[in-house]
Amino acid sequence: MNLINGAAGEAISVRDRGFAYGDGVFRTFPVRGGKPVLWDRQYAKLAHDCRALKINCPSQQTLERDIALLDTSDCVVKIIVTRGDSARGYAPPPEPAPARVLIASPVPAYAADYSNKGVGVHLCRLRLAAQPVLAGIKHLNRLENVLARAEWRDPDIAEGLLCDTGDNVIGGTMSNVFIAKDGTLRTPDLAGCGVAGVMRELVMELAHAHNVPLQVAAISLDDLFAADEVFVVNSVIGLWPVIALDRKNWKAGALGAQTQRWIADVQGA
Amino acid sequence: MNLINGAAGEAISVRDRGFAYGDGVFRTFPVRGGKPVLWDRQYAKLAHDCRALKINCPSQQTLERDIALLDTSDCVVKIIVTRGDSARGYAPPPEPAPARVLIASPVPAYAADYSNKGVGVHLCRLRLAAQPVLAGIKHLNRLENVLARAEWRDPDIAEGLLCDTGDNVIGGTMSNVFIAKDGTLRTPDLAGCGVAGVMRELVMELAHAHNVPLQVAAISLDDLFAADEVFVVNSVIGLWPVIALDRKNWKAGALGAQTQRWIADVQGA
Repeated sequence: MNLINGAAGEAISVRDRGFAYGDGVFRTFPVRGGKPVLWDRQYAKLAHDCRALKINCPSQQTLERDIALLDTSDCVVKIIVTRGDSARGYAPPPEPAPARVLIASPVPAYAADYSNKGVGVHLCRLRLAAQPVLAGIKHLNRLENVLARAEWRDPDIAEGLLCDTGDNVIGGTMSNVFIAKDGTLRTPDLAGCGVAGVMRELVMELAHAHNVPLQVAAISLDDLFAADEVFVVNSVIGLWPVIALDRKNWKAGALGAQTQRWIADVQGA
Repeated sequence: MNLINGAAGEAISVRDRGFAYGDGVFRTFPVRGGKPVLWDRQYAKLAHDCRALKINCPSQQTLERDIALLDTSDCVVKIIVTRGDSARGYAPPPEPAPARVLIASPVPAYAADYSNKGVGVHLCRLRLAAQPVLAGIKHLNRLENVLARAEWRDPDIAEGLLCDTGDNVIGGTMSNVFIAKDGTLRTPDLAGCGVAGVMRELVMELAHAHNVPLQVAAISLDDLFAADEVFVVNSVIGLWPVIALDRKNWKAGALGAQTQRWIADVQGA
């Protein structure tokens, strides 16, 4: 079941600017027992990203009512907010009427091993373009992610890592990345490209709260291959240790496992 | 009236990847007396762009049948081709069913002066990111154009010029750009960013056919301001001389006017 502006529906106007130009933002997160996980954080990011594009974000209460209308209480929900319909042309309409879409999908059946034993990842050939005006925002212009994800079909590869044009690791196609070296965590700065996810933010806060040193700094490929641990995070998968990349192998490490427990505590899981 | 996969319709599935990710391409062109203008060229570009994204392009005949179904014979048609529906996630579906959408809009009522006397343009602050994998393609990830077009509301400004991060002029928000200096035309190389339009291609061929020297090379801001003539082109507007940018003024020049006549000859106008 999907909702369009609060009403059950399966289709959006072909004049919606989300369809025409990717002129909108989105978030994807689990709903468990009817409750959206880390909801305040998800909403805060959605509102932040709408502000960045000067799109009027629906209220948190409006979206909560939408979620309560879904015919499932355990699912993955994607909320899309667009600038709404307009006539032809890039100029935003003078009085835009933003559209909101909720798409409910089954909870994905990832192997339980992914969280425990870890996953193999692919190093993507595509390089992310630097666009500071859009960096960090989870907007609807995601062709880079699509093309990167199309680089592999091997079902044993669970994620792809993406670099910027300077060969610094920015994140996964659908996740944020952390490395650990000598007890210090590092996650890339996203000022040029990448998406600033809710789980990345939570892991950063958890590290701070538990006195784990954390740097927000560039991760070169050398840094990546020299790391003691590598893991990827997002709101749906939680945290997956990375155990294989090309010929390099890691073990699922202690810092990743500890972080998984901290995440579970916060989520009440 | 709009058409979705050949049937009258106003809405597209919210699971369409064009909506979710901008995973598709488009073209916009006039239809006059039921005939799409420069149609073979438009279709060739659409097919080229589909190939670049590995999307299966509808046949030219299919799209011609669609255009004949429209309830108007004089309009501007936008054709959007997407990778079609898929479940959640960036991975393209193993057997995608591309979607095609035709949107018919009224012929825009630009002032006749725009073609004769020329237009004022805005120099956009936004800089286009370099992404060679997507450069030249008229894909649905157009947030840069949207943000650039939102930089001005002055109705006397008809277009905005966009530079890359090296401050080289790449094109307009909805057009391609040419400058003339000492009888030689120049249009930017689009290997890093920008959209390679049908009218740009036609003007290049017309220059060649009429022995007008033409360079495909970088246009710095110094080159722009030192030009004898500047004009912008696209399939809907044709050719607009640029006569004002900040405090710089040009006159609508002879080479632009000559090119307009050549374009009109080709189009049988």
